[in-house]
Amino acid sequence: MSITVYGFWRSIASFRVRVALRLKGLPFEEIPIDILSGEQFEPGYKAVNAERVVPTFIHDGHSIFQSLAIIEYLDDIQPTPKLIPGDIKERAYARSLALTTIADVHPLTVPRVRNHLATTFGADAGAIEEWGKHWTVEGLATYERLLAQRAPAPFALGAEPGLADICIAGQVVGAHYLKLELGAYPVVSRLAERCFAMPAFATSHPFEQPEYKTANRLV
Amino acid sequence: MSITVYGFWRSIASFRVRVALRLKGLPFEEIPIDILSGEQFEPGYKAVNAERVVPTFIHDGHSIFQSLAIIEYLDDIQPTPKLIPGDIKERAYARSLALTTIADVHPLTVPRVRNHLATTFGADAGAIEEWGKHWTVEGLATYERLLAQRAPAPFALGAEPGLADICIAGQVVGAHYLKLELGAYPVVSRLAERCFAMPAFATSHPFEQPEYKTANRLV
Repeated sequence: MSITVYGFWRSIASFRVRVALRLKGLPFEEIPIDILSGEQFEPGYKAVNAERVVPTFIHDGHSIFQSLAIIEYLDDIQPTPKLIPGDIKERAYARSLALTTIADVHPLTVPRVRNHLATTFGADAGAIEEWGKHWTVEGLATYERLLAQRAPAPFALGAEPGLADICIAGQVVGAHYLKLELGAYPVVSRLAERCFAMPAFATSHPFEQPEYKTANRLV
Repeated sequence: MSITVYGFWRSIASFRVRVALRLKGLPFEEIPIDILSGEQFEPGYKAVNAERVVPTFIHDGHSIFQSLAIIEYLDDIQPTPKLIPGDIKERAYARSLALTTIADVHPLTVPRVRNHLATTFGADAGAIEEWGKHWTVEGLATYERLLAQRAPAPFALGAEPGLADICIAGQVVGAHYLKLELGAYPVVSRLAERCFAMPAFATSHPFEQPEYKTANRLV
């Protein structure tokens, strides 16, 4: 099986897909699309992904976009280890936790939104950073409240990491970008530590990607 | 089976869940949570949904949040009519189309973001409306490009409406709020017309909800 991922070192959605592939032990090639410089808007990439976002996942020539759709697909084609539980209520809980960042927090902090704040409201770098901090803190606080209702044991749904942990870890990556203190979110923080102790998470962290290591730009 | 949905007439995520329930013929009670006046932040609702968003779906006492997680759950407990196809590649396509608005467009236009633009950048009503138009137009244009690659036949995935159509129709509801012309998006527009010709969609439209009809406020 041949897997290619068009991704970007800094993209949290690309991070999620990297972790899922590595938890399943599926080898893949990552082709970088620099979404900070706007490579996703070039005609060549539009042919790959008409939404013009990363990641795009190509499996034996078949293309899928959106990180959650990709992770669900991975669970369908390679059921072990399962990232989304088989039990109907547990599946729903995993997806609810995943969508908390996918649908409500992460979208507010991506480059096209930051750029639009600058062009529309004249937001400078400081104001854009404050915007990112506001929503990232909201996301962390939300996860802390959610995990207080059902404690991780030790991962969000039980003994093994899965979709929910991948997404919560991605939210914590957002906090790393902004150098946020995690002391107010102890349950989230411990969950993320547990995740990043695993090679699948650690090697997928944006700061471990070759493009980050060679980049001269600031994150 | 007893189903309760905490929702709001104007919430597009609540619209999605209403349509899914009606397509499946499942009766439900909707309890309004006014997210424009901030009812979602009251302690009573925090106990219902620690993320403090709508919708929250309660099935025989079991609670699920996030519209996509709810619709997936509905497909699990009531498989006919299926809203998400059984074929692995088709499932992935349905979810990719759904997430285009769920993860990338709709989150940018919700009340808490509009309020934050006002308090942070001093955005007035006109600037907030322009912000909403910008992202809604982006979403419509993205769907038009995506549907140009695989024409609806007549719904996004085939003969019957499903998850993808629900989400695209929700994006069109966003255009209705902003009184946007749909002429530049003929394929999206025809798909939405086909959807809103069906009672499950038509009766779920925000402008058909009792709270809208009696509300004195502007949308």
